[in-house]
Amino acid sequence: SSYSTSSSSSSKLLFRQLFEKESSTYTYLLADISQPDRPALLIDPVDKTVDRDLNVIKELGLKLVYAMNTHVHADHVTGTGLIKSKVPGVKSIISKESGSKADLHVEHGDKVSFGDLFLEVRATPGHTLGCVTYVTGDGPDQPQPRMAFTGDALLIRGCGRTDFQGGSSTQLYKSVHSQIFTLPKDTLLYPAHDYRGFTVSTVGEEMQYNPRLTKDEETFKSIMENLNLSYPKMMDVAVPANMVCGMQDLHSKA
Amino acid sequence: SSYSTSSSSSSKLLFRQLFEKESSTYTYLLADISQPDRPALLIDPVDKTVDRDLNVIKELGLKLVYAMNTHVHADHVTGTGLIKSKVPGVKSIISKESGSKADLHVEHGDKVSFGDLFLEVRATPGHTLGCVTYVTGDGPDQPQPRMAFTGDALLIRGCGRTDFQGGSSTQLYKSVHSQIFTLPKDTLLYPAHDYRGFTVSTVGEEMQYNPRLTKDEETFKSIMENLNLSYPKMMDVAVPANMVCGMQDLHSKA
Ligand SMILES: [Fe+2]
Ligand SMILES: [Fe+2]
Repeated sequence: SSYSTSSSSSSKLLFRQLFEKESSTYTYLLADISQPDRPALLIDPVDKTVDRDLNVIKELGLKLVYAMNTHVHADHVTGTGLIKSKVPGVKSIISKESGSKADLHVEHGDKVSFGDLFLEVRATPGHTLGCVTYVTGDGPDQPQPRMAFTGDALLIRGCGRTDFQGGSSTQLYKSVHSQIFTLPKDTLLYPAHDYRGFTVSTVGEEMQYNPRLTKDEETFKSIMENLNLSYPKMMDVAVPANMVCGMQDLHSKA
Repeated sequence: SSYSTSSSSSSKLLFRQLFEKESSTYTYLLADISQPDRPALLIDPVDKTVDRDLNVIKELGLKLVYAMNTHVHADHVTGTGLIKSKVPGVKSIISKESGSKADLHVEHGDKVSFGDLFLEVRATPGHTLGCVTYVTGDGPDQPQPRMAFTGDALLIRGCGRTDFQGGSSTQLYKSVHSQIFTLPKDTLLYPAHDYRGFTVSTVGEEMQYNPRLTKDEETFKSIMENLNLSYPKMMDVAVPANMVCGMQDLHSKA
């Protein structure tokens, strides 16, 4: 079937998936290496792995331009603040809807460009009110198949919880079906987390096998209402820090 | 520079990288999806994640043909025995030099075919005597850039230890330089383990930044002799099991 594809490729794109074991978070590095300055961006960097990420960026000869978040994380502290303190000129990006501080706020339909490549911003609220999915561009020079960085809106065979931070199962159901499942079936899905060792999925796969999102809306809502999840360990540290894009310590130390 | 590339692609190849957290092991799934029966193979499956792997293989509509190991692992029990008991017809593969039992033994220069795609076997002893690196084929229909599954011979910015299982730092140095560093610089390197959250590297990157293999042979040998590593926790369980390709429990239960 058509949804079983290989990794995404583009002669311009350098792509790296990076894992932080403690919170099972994926950070993504994308760069346009067809440009002389090799502009790069990081999606969902983690504070604990900032030095690893900046080191590989340096080794690969990339120029980091943006440090972006898909949403205000409750399970780890974003690396954006630390990155900004270590690499002058890097701009932090998060959605306007998140209510979080950042250098640049994006909204549904915006484009984030790095060299000739770009990410399209799709509002996918439901896990949090300000969740967005970043999708690689649609065009001849853009990666094929397309790649979607879904944050916690859609996980591999799962999805993020909807019981705090302005979450709503009704909204999440609508977001995934209208903004992610409408992408080409071979679109590669890269979530913010995976707890079972999967690294990637596709739209076609999740449309067929996601145990939650393949259900009708009422069943989905009932699944989400009955998860009985515990309060996230990191919540009281991570959320206040992430609302200022990881700049809290840097401010208080200044 | 030319070694900074995107992920490998081929219209025929389905590729998945899978992670086992406890032993930080990567298992690789490759399939030729241009063929009606979608023949697939697994490299370095782990016993604990066999059900996960077989389930995704089923969901993707693949036919598992081979369960292969790069070497006799000392840190985890191979999944090949369990896979063979659960999926009749799957053949286990390991190098002849390993001295381990398997359905098929491969040697340097052999090809392992699945559909129109194939892996080339390169002997890369040094971590163990029987270590091999599996490299995707060189040809018009084969993945570009090429992909090398290095086991523990070459890790991202590191390499496997050489102090037991017939290991030899002299041999490992020679193996990496003659069999891996001679591949095209954009060849994607997929190791059996990573402990810091990296998922992939390239030949060019390791030739420039590997802290051990970039040194001259004498320095490399001295580094390897002074690692002061502890005895692997799983060694006494894993090695006997892996010498029979994970068939030990199945035999004793039979
Ligand atoms: Fe989240
Ligand atoms: Fe090993």
